[in-house]
Amino acid sequence: MRSAGAIGAGDLAEDGIWHGGDLATARALFPDAPGPWIDLSTGINPIPYPLPELPLSLWTRLPGADDEAALLAAARAAYRVPGDAGIVAAPGTQILIELLPRLAPAGPVAILGPTYAEHAHAWRKAGYVVTEAARPEEAAATLVVVNPNNPDGRLLSRAEIAELAARCAARGGLLVVDEAFADFTPETSIMPDLPASVVVLRSFGKTYGLAGLRLGFAIGAPDLTAQLAVALGPWSVAGPALHLGAQALADAAWLADAGEARARDAARLDELLAPRGRIVGGTSLFRLLETPAAPALFARLGRHGIYVRRFQNAPDRLRFGLPGDEAAWSRLQQALAADVRQASPSA
Amino acid sequence: MRSAGAIGAGDLAEDGIWHGGDLATARALFPDAPGPWIDLSTGINPIPYPLPELPLSLWTRLPGADDEAALLAAARAAYRVPGDAGIVAAPGTQILIELLPRLAPAGPVAILGPTYAEHAHAWRKAGYVVTEAARPEEAAATLVVVNPNNPDGRLLSRAEIAELAARCAARGGLLVVDEAFADFTPETSIMPDLPASVVVLRSFGKTYGLAGLRLGFAIGAPDLTAQLAVALGPWSVAGPALHLGAQALADAAWLADAGEARARDAARLDELLAPRGRIVGGTSLFRLLETPAAPALFARLGRHGIYVRRFQNAPDRLRFGLPGDEAAWSRLQQALAADVRQASPSA
Repeated sequence: MRSAGAIGAGDLAEDGIWHGGDLATARALFPDAPGPWIDLSTGINPIPYPLPELPLSLWTRLPGADDEAALLAAARAAYRVPGDAGIVAAPGTQILIELLPRLAPAGPVAILGPTYAEHAHAWRKAGYVVTEAARPEEAAATLVVVNPNNPDGRLLSRAEIAELAARCAARGGLLVVDEAFADFTPETSIMPDLPASVVVLRSFGKTYGLAGLRLGFAIGAPDLTAQLAVALGPWSVAGPALHLGAQALADAAWLADAGEARARDAARLDELLAPRGRIVGGTSLFRLLETPAAPALFARLGRHGIYVRRFQNAPDRLRFGLPGDEAAWSRLQQALAADVRQASPSA
Repeated sequence: MRSAGAIGAGDLAEDGIWHGGDLATARALFPDAPGPWIDLSTGINPIPYPLPELPLSLWTRLPGADDEAALLAAARAAYRVPGDAGIVAAPGTQILIELLPRLAPAGPVAILGPTYAEHAHAWRKAGYVVTEAARPEEAAATLVVVNPNNPDGRLLSRAEIAELAARCAARGGLLVVDEAFADFTPETSIMPDLPASVVVLRSFGKTYGLAGLRLGFAIGAPDLTAQLAVALGPWSVAGPALHLGAQALADAAWLADAGEARARDAARLDELLAPRGRIVGGTSLFRLLETPAAPALFARLGRHGIYVRRFQNAPDRLRFGLPGDEAAWSRLQQALAADVRQASPSA
């Protein structure tokens, strides 16, 4: 019997969801690859927000109500949350994705896909009938959209989101808008407008390069965010995350600089990838490449110690995160060139 | 309208649960108290496990499956978890207390009280009929015991726990044993035995003095811990908590030394408190004092900048955590003496 405690990212992968970010998988797939591994399998900013000094009391004391209030005030300002909306912080957006189906209205659920697989997984686990729809017109009562979308960067306009929100409201459902990748492009967020049927999810760790910290937010009708807060219980967010999150979310200058720098990196990555296939889209934290040679390219990069994101249901696509330093850029460039040279004879 | 995001320890307090550890409340109650505040309102070890260097990657990367596996292996060894039991880690025990009622069998629930109020609160929120029973004989289908108990240190023997487990099993229920304060007295734990109807909760933050880290465990039947893991979703525990928890739980020498030191502190605290009333009990992390003068003593300590734990349903009791340094011991001693002098004339 397998220990239940072993259930985690690895086992979810066995259950049908591949995630980026787990280098143990990469090492197992390519045991002879040269180190150190370059992990391009996530959409996490490789240049993190600089860790401040963290007072010892953040670790030793139970997280205080004043620390939580400071974090939520900073998040409200950063995300332009309307004053009459509720907001709740959680140890990562993932647990909010798990909790939402418990609190949502009954009725069929549509996910605007293809997208981050954990949404469909969570609603199905909770017993909902879930369809993955390629177009928002096929929406059921409750609709989930990731905007900008992961992995292809597909973007719904504010007008489109508002129209979908009205449709969900008319059907007694929710519109869940996962804005995990909207920080660098605030004009793509539905906020500061927020129709009553909309729940927005915001993730801290990707933009700020601190995914291990575990911090995310749900923003929506005060009744719903209050229910989420009750389901989480007190002290769900660690003291260091409350403090660091509040400081980083108030740092507009860092966000602006990082946004410009990552946009330059994304353009540089596009240049490297363009000869290898079609850039389908992405955000400034990841780019999606489409090529029939994707499986071979994944394997070749792996043998060079570079881990990118492949997709079970789209074997011709690979998602590339951004290299974090010149050494990584150089190794990526060499591995891509090696692939051209080595692949040519058999092409 | 109050923001839903403001819901936290403070609001739960308004809803009827007072918690220790929130100095903002103390400051509001006693605005003129001299600083710095001495927080004796919790049962958290005031001498924390020394923070190790935390590699930056713990913050920047998604928590890895290998990090989680290392933590769970350390926890299995430290808590003497039987090999055929499941274990799951969470961002604090509190969220496991919130989740358990979702996954438990139907039927009435008894809490062996008085005890930590969040247990009854969570089961009631989930729609269960909950009674607080003074004796385990009054158990319903599912029974919750905190062992050793908070705040009075009441201890059920392993034989008593086993008997209760059999009774709950016969009624199709669970026996939840919250062993949050068992680390220093492993002989009080049900483990390494673990009847199939038992779920054990273990808390990391109290013994190791790192309550802000947020780390707790549920141990029980593999089916149940697997369901808890699914409900939490992947990456619920932060990278630094995985790493630090694994290191600390493997450090048997620190635990033994800390256990001896805190037992000495508890005896010293008993000596200070004995003239003020009856020591009802406690553990080596807190002592429970009973005296008709408890409300006056709470107020007098507060005016001296010392925050202790009072109880809404037991106004004649105060719980004292351990001072963390000689300055705090000295201030406590002086505040208690001042109380004797000032209280005498009106006695």
